[in-house]
Amino acid sequence: MDKVRVCVDVMGGDEEPSVVMAGIEAALAADADLTVVAVGPQDIVEAFAKKHERVEPLVAPDVITMEDDPIQAVMHKRKSSVVIGCRAVKKGAADAFFSAGATGAITAAATAYVTPFKYESEGTRRPIRPCLTSALPNRQGGLTVLCDMGANPDVEVEDLVRFAQMGATYARVVCGISNPRVGLLSNGSEDTKGSHFTKECFLHMGKSVPGFAGNCEGTDLTSGNFDVVATDGFAGNVALKATEGAAKLLMSELKGVLMGSLGGKIAALLVKDGLKELKVKLSGDAKGGAILLGLRGVVLIGHGATSVEAIKNGTLASAYAVREGLVDKLASSMENIVR
Amino acid sequence: MDKVRVCVDVMGGDEEPSVVMAGIEAALAADADLTVVAVGPQDIVEAFAKKHERVEPLVAPDVITMEDDPIQAVMHKRKSSVVIGCRAVKKGAADAFFSAGATGAITAAATAYVTPFKYESEGTRRPIRPCLTSALPNRQGGLTVLCDMGANPDVEVEDLVRFAQMGATYARVVCGISNPRVGLLSNGSEDTKGSHFTKECFLHMGKSVPGFAGNCEGTDLTSGNFDVVATDGFAGNVALKATEGAAKLLMSELKGVLMGSLGGKIAALLVKDGLKELKVKLSGDAKGGAILLGLRGVVLIGHGATSVEAIKNGTLASAYAVREGLVDKLASSMENIVR
Repeated sequence: MDKVRVCVDVMGGDEEPSVVMAGIEAALAADADLTVVAVGPQDIVEAFAKKHERVEPLVAPDVITMEDDPIQAVMHKRKSSVVIGCRAVKKGAADAFFSAGATGAITAAATAYVTPFKYESEGTRRPIRPCLTSALPNRQGGLTVLCDMGANPDVEVEDLVRFAQMGATYARVVCGISNPRVGLLSNGSEDTKGSHFTKECFLHMGKSVPGFAGNCEGTDLTSGNFDVVATDGFAGNVALKATEGAAKLLMSELKGVLMGSLGGKIAALLVKDGLKELKVKLSGDAKGGAILLGLRGVVLIGHGATSVEAIKNGTLASAYAVREGLVDKLASSMENIVR
Repeated sequence: MDKVRVCVDVMGGDEEPSVVMAGIEAALAADADLTVVAVGPQDIVEAFAKKHERVEPLVAPDVITMEDDPIQAVMHKRKSSVVIGCRAVKKGAADAFFSAGATGAITAAATAYVTPFKYESEGTRRPIRPCLTSALPNRQGGLTVLCDMGANPDVEVEDLVRFAQMGATYARVVCGISNPRVGLLSNGSEDTKGSHFTKECFLHMGKSVPGFAGNCEGTDLTSGNFDVVATDGFAGNVALKATEGAAKLLMSELKGVLMGSLGGKIAALLVKDGLKELKVKLSGDAKGGAILLGLRGVVLIGHGATSVEAIKNGTLASAYAVREGLVDKLASSMENIVR
């Protein structure tokens, strides 16, 4: 495979840096052509790099926390791992950046340093809003792409049309779906359903989004009837987290059923491995992270409550996006892009 | 118990009227002080009333379907079961109306005929927007109230504040929660999270909603950390349906685990009853329907894909809301209400 250098934020996530480093080690073991640029405090990254041939240290003395205001933090914490990681991509010192840190700060830093593509609209050049995108397992055994998952709580019609176009390209390139069916998330599947805003989006998407298949509902995140669910970052985040919450509720209720009787306890032993696999599949660790589409480089964001498995998969997914040329393919999939 | 007359729409829902009638029979058997006014086509409701002492027929020759435009249908189909049922409440011929028909049409008919309370705002009288409300099971073994679940895709700040106030009263009166913790659904739990719109709601809710506990996330529909999740009908519907979809995904994945091996098949037999109960608990049938809060009468809406159990429980829930005086308690819980 092509050699790829992924910069990984050792300070990203709620866990200790040791969890991130164990994840990096697992990714290196799985991909012999991968080099990781580990960004973080000097003592941690230099000691880590000494132990591994394919790890390079990148010193960042500062950290952006979940409590920091994203824009302020990116402006003032120039020596943070998130800012230095994004700048490494900009300068070509790394092919991609992956962090399980705060979504808002990573989005702000990526927008400032990796920079989004611009497009021509009514004579002026406007930047694309980076759109947080990932794919969830659905009931038909496939994957459904959700975009935006939370980077942009307020968007305009034009933004949502771009999200849909980028989501469709992601479905083709990353999920291998040749003709993705794109749905507009709404409060009902009929054409007449929606808020004033989504009704306007509906009209534009019909003209500008190949594969547009009309309105879809919250159930379609997991139904398998749509390959891409396009929405703003507010509704997308709500839908994603409602799905996560429901999965947790069911797992805990199921535990109650299994632990509530002797028969249940025996049943639990019989299906232990199967349930463990199911939990991993639905936890999001299998994907490792979500990608910010629309940027001139590859930036992935992991779940804050991360794990070794999630860091491994997020790092490998970053390398995959680089090798597949996802950034160029996205730019080609949209009209009026300024290269 | 107090005698109550509930009008039930025989034509509501995707199933045959026989399913609705079986549900009514089950409700009558469970509540000796209940009388049902069955509204629907003459032949069906008259034959049904002949068989039951506590069923009265109310003839409605027309039906509003899921495909009809709600406002148009309510204006032009004056002889539909939905319009005649709402008018029965208005005239005092019934204490409540329950239908598993189209949400939009029932909301429109209830607004036109049962009529919402009005409130004084800047010298003018404005009607409250009816807010579709129900309670979902959460991970702590309690219930979480979601409002609005889909009646109002576009709302103003003032509307959402009312929803939160009414949701809290519902939590007290119907769920028996003495001091409900009210959350504003957002794309993150921090105070700084949200869209422009929810940030403005946040400021007003802090002043006007007793028990306001800040922003909550999609996960909090089921976490049990909030008793009321207040939102607009767009995000509320998306969250509700994403939850439903995730539950379906998990149940189908679980089936795969159980049917995938001999051990799994044995396990399935051991926990068969427990899983069946779990399915009912999470299906929404246990609640039977959602109530439209803010009206001068009790109107409940059932899930379109209904069942005998759901119709039974929706009918009983309607009677419960009447006996508890929910309508008056709601009006008393809000400021500036014009009686």
